[in-house]
Amino acid sequence: MNKRLQLFSEWLQEQHISFALITSSPNVFYLSGFYCDPHERLLALLIFPQEEPALICPQMETARVKQAGWTYEIIDYTDTDNPWQLLEHHVRSRNIAVERIAVEKSHLSLERYELLHTYFQARSWINAEEKLRQLRMIKEEKEIAVLRQAAELADYAVEVGVNAIAEGKTELDIIATIEYEMKKKGVREMSFATMVLTGKNTANPHGVPGLTAIQRGDFVLFDLGVIVDGYCSDITRTVVFGEATEEQQMIYDTVLRAQLAAIDASKPGVEIGNVDRAARSIIEQAGYGPYFTHRVGHGLGIELHEYPSMNATNTMPLERGMTFTIEPGIYVPSVGGVRIEDDVFITDNGAEILTKYPKELIIV
Amino acid sequence: MNKRLQLFSEWLQEQHISFALITSSPNVFYLSGFYCDPHERLLALLIFPQEEPALICPQMETARVKQAGWTYEIIDYTDTDNPWQLLEHHVRSRNIAVERIAVEKSHLSLERYELLHTYFQARSWINAEEKLRQLRMIKEEKEIAVLRQAAELADYAVEVGVNAIAEGKTELDIIATIEYEMKKKGVREMSFATMVLTGKNTANPHGVPGLTAIQRGDFVLFDLGVIVDGYCSDITRTVVFGEATEEQQMIYDTVLRAQLAAIDASKPGVEIGNVDRAARSIIEQAGYGPYFTHRVGHGLGIELHEYPSMNATNTMPLERGMTFTIEPGIYVPSVGGVRIEDDVFITDNGAEILTKYPKELIIV
Repeated sequence: MNKRLQLFSEWLQEQHISFALITSSPNVFYLSGFYCDPHERLLALLIFPQEEPALICPQMETARVKQAGWTYEIIDYTDTDNPWQLLEHHVRSRNIAVERIAVEKSHLSLERYELLHTYFQARSWINAEEKLRQLRMIKEEKEIAVLRQAAELADYAVEVGVNAIAEGKTELDIIATIEYEMKKKGVREMSFATMVLTGKNTANPHGVPGLTAIQRGDFVLFDLGVIVDGYCSDITRTVVFGEATEEQQMIYDTVLRAQLAAIDASKPGVEIGNVDRAARSIIEQAGYGPYFTHRVGHGLGIELHEYPSMNATNTMPLERGMTFTIEPGIYVPSVGGVRIEDDVFITDNGAEILTKYPKELIIV
Repeated sequence: MNKRLQLFSEWLQEQHISFALITSSPNVFYLSGFYCDPHERLLALLIFPQEEPALICPQMETARVKQAGWTYEIIDYTDTDNPWQLLEHHVRSRNIAVERIAVEKSHLSLERYELLHTYFQARSWINAEEKLRQLRMIKEEKEIAVLRQAAELADYAVEVGVNAIAEGKTELDIIATIEYEMKKKGVREMSFATMVLTGKNTANPHGVPGLTAIQRGDFVLFDLGVIVDGYCSDITRTVVFGEATEEQQMIYDTVLRAQLAAIDASKPGVEIGNVDRAARSIIEQAGYGPYFTHRVGHGLGIELHEYPSMNATNTMPLERGMTFTIEPGIYVPSVGGVRIEDDVFITDNGAEILTKYPKELIIV
């Protein structure tokens, strides 16, 4: 078994869990190497404490499962089969006592739970998600290598976007140019809907890009990322078109100082809350405290938002192998907003920055 | 109350349901006019059999809820509030007996169900999804108007794609051009990842576009759609680059005849299975039966796939106001695949075709 499956199996054994049924695409990918969005069809990993795992998938996916390197049993089914019955038969064939079943409680629907319930009268239903979040939080070298590539492409996407800024261009124009160039580079999917905001729209951290044309003196904010081999990058840069006012310059400098301080604070053993506070205290000292309205960052990997959550109340210590974003921002409704975001990786000594697009204020 | 809420409330009353908690974004949008992806946060409509509804949302969404035209109570909360407790208080304040609660069982997670369970000791948990699917299946005039716009933009997207075909261009190149032009037109979101497939890749109904360059003699298949005001379009066209072989021509003609026959069969009162069979029998007669491996279409609206399912075993009669796709295909691994797909709307007399891009075989 690969190391991930082995660690998860050991946890099942410790917890006296009969078997785990893992159905979310990110966790199936993490444990099996096979990624697929099965829509309403069943895709599931069956993992046991002491036996080999099995994978249940629609028959049309069988070849891709093997290509992905899965060497254990595959239970495949056609649209006229009942995959839940096949699942039950398979578990029965193992001759194990079914008392505690682990599932992903925030992913498994009530409908599927009720269905499982008719097949297995387990005493307890355990949530497997916390354990999987912990495993996924510490990245292996090969995961970092992929995240590095994803970050490099995100840098390039920002470069394309900054070069596309011109009088009269709209937010959607610039997004169109960025995504066009990324597809030309072979990027199949962005990690989320690319965000380009201008002017006062930048003051909304959840702003929606539209047909607003860029005007001289506007902040232009880019927040985007790409998916490479199943892993996400996420970068934010803010530039000014034309000329920056003193206030814009001040806001920018404050965010940049806050971001650098948070990176500086990111070292193995440091409490995560301290990273948030390192950025927040600089923004508060500059008088912009009420305008920094979100946590300093989030874990990054197979999902855009994963563990660890980089918020002020998180007392978990940083560990080598964690990857996350550092992205303080200041959003002043009457002026606009600035956010600067990097993806970082915790090494033995500190934080390695994966996204490398320049951070000094660029005036286009 | 709007007509949709009223019909749903009447159903709650008939079913003796104490209240419904609707949490999926499409159903919340359908009933309230407010669309939002709340991620892990709670967004919910509380609907009662005989009282006015209420909407629970994060505080940062309150202004947008009102803008969307919601005039009933809003229960908003900050990140430090417990929205489930607010929900419980609200229901208690109505002084109703809580015995039967309706939820969306394929959407509600086991985690949320367990949480709800701690607040409400209901006797039964009823699935509200079937009723909502039925309501959403029959479109109102204003929904058709939006679907018409979405279809028109999909036509334009295919036109852009066909014009972009040239020797050496890859699948991703053409997708890049299509999505670029759509963004220029103000389209914020495609209804799914745009598919452009060439050569033998067209023989896979779930093919993934890549860096394959178009070659003379290839089929080029476009499957795409856009979202307009929350409603999806979905079109497929297949063209040939260079020159068509006799077999390509024969496959194309067969699919086209099958598609026209299915459209012709689509009238109020006709059993849905007959629409599938109308297409399938033509393909079977031509000897390609085993290569038409999917249902003839799917309902279309707020979601890309909704009711009715256009498959051979569906005995439901078509009704005025239903909108769905008609998309037979033939996929011959050694040759390639052809699919032709339109969005149609059932009128009093037959089917109105919303997508209008030409269907005779185009040789580029």
